[in-house]
Amino acid sequence: MARKEPKHLDDLFHDTLKDIYFAEKKILATLPKMEKAAQSLDLKNAFAKHHTETEGHVARLEKVFATIDKKPQGKTCDAIVGITDEGAEIMKEYKGSPALDAGLLAAAQAVEHYEISRYGTMKTWAQELGLSDAVRLLDQTLQEEKKTDETLTQIAESVVNREAEAA
Amino acid sequence: MARKEPKHLDDLFHDTLKDIYFAEKKILATLPKMEKAAQSLDLKNAFAKHHTETEGHVARLEKVFATIDKKPQGKTCDAIVGITDEGAEIMKEYKGSPALDAGLLAAAQAVEHYEISRYGTMKTWAQELGLSDAVRLLDQTLQEEKKTDETLTQIAESVVNREAEAA
Repeated sequence: MARKEPKHLDDLFHDTLKDIYFAEKKILATLPKMEKAAQSLDLKNAFAKHHTETEGHVARLEKVFATIDKKPQGKTCDAIVGITDEGAEIMKEYKGSPALDAGLLAAAQAVEHYEISRYGTMKTWAQELGLSDAVRLLDQTLQEEKKTDETLTQIAESVVNREAEAA
Repeated sequence: MARKEPKHLDDLFHDTLKDIYFAEKKILATLPKMEKAAQSLDLKNAFAKHHTETEGHVARLEKVFATIDKKPQGKTCDAIVGITDEGAEIMKEYKGSPALDAGLLAAAQAVEHYEISRYGTMKTWAQELGLSDAVRLLDQTLQEEKKTDETLTQIAESVVNREAEAA
């Protein structure tokens, strides 16, 4: 960073695209650990399904890079590192405990909300930049992340009920 | 952590309460920097208003600690550290650039979504644990965070339009 040029919305879009590309790959590496750790079959299945979807999100981001004539490239995203570290802490501290699944669900929903925020922002910027293909691709993933968050909320309610009944 | 006892939902609730208490205090320390950095008056005002609200959120969390007979205590929340580090990076890299406000808004919305996820989760747990006062307190903050996120979305659209018109 020797030179410092004024940065415009297209720079911000490209920087944030690198950030979310890194984040999706980090999530891809984390989901199999969460699937293994989960106690309920519903939750294991939800993590497995979201892993497959996340592969699709990575592929879509590569297409978004193509719409701005850039090569796919990640850049360390401190936010997702922090969010997934928190999930790893839950896996460690709640291993073998009845509240493990509730903790894993909370961690996964924090990840979903981060992604919903990022894809929402990037879709707005893509609209403003007139990148209609990028808008479509980002919106497809945004809708899937929202749906995943809803599924996790439903599982969270049943998991929490089950623990309360067993207590 | 010499002993390792099975942890239940009440432990998870208490642990996550410490986590969000740390997060709200970190946000309280970060907002004045974001207010100072912001270029548009709308955004400066939104950050100032949210600072006042956040003081209220901290006070409410102290009341939630009281509902479970615990002393208010924070515990490092890696997620908010990562999310606010990302905001600090934007302030540094986009200083003096036309896209600064758009970047600050994206950072602030990532914070809001983290909080929405956390307060939503904690409200569900409080309901299950029969902590009706905690449910009410957590829901009040949840509604304010959602409203702040909507306000930021509106400002984001006008900020981005303004930059596009000026470009």
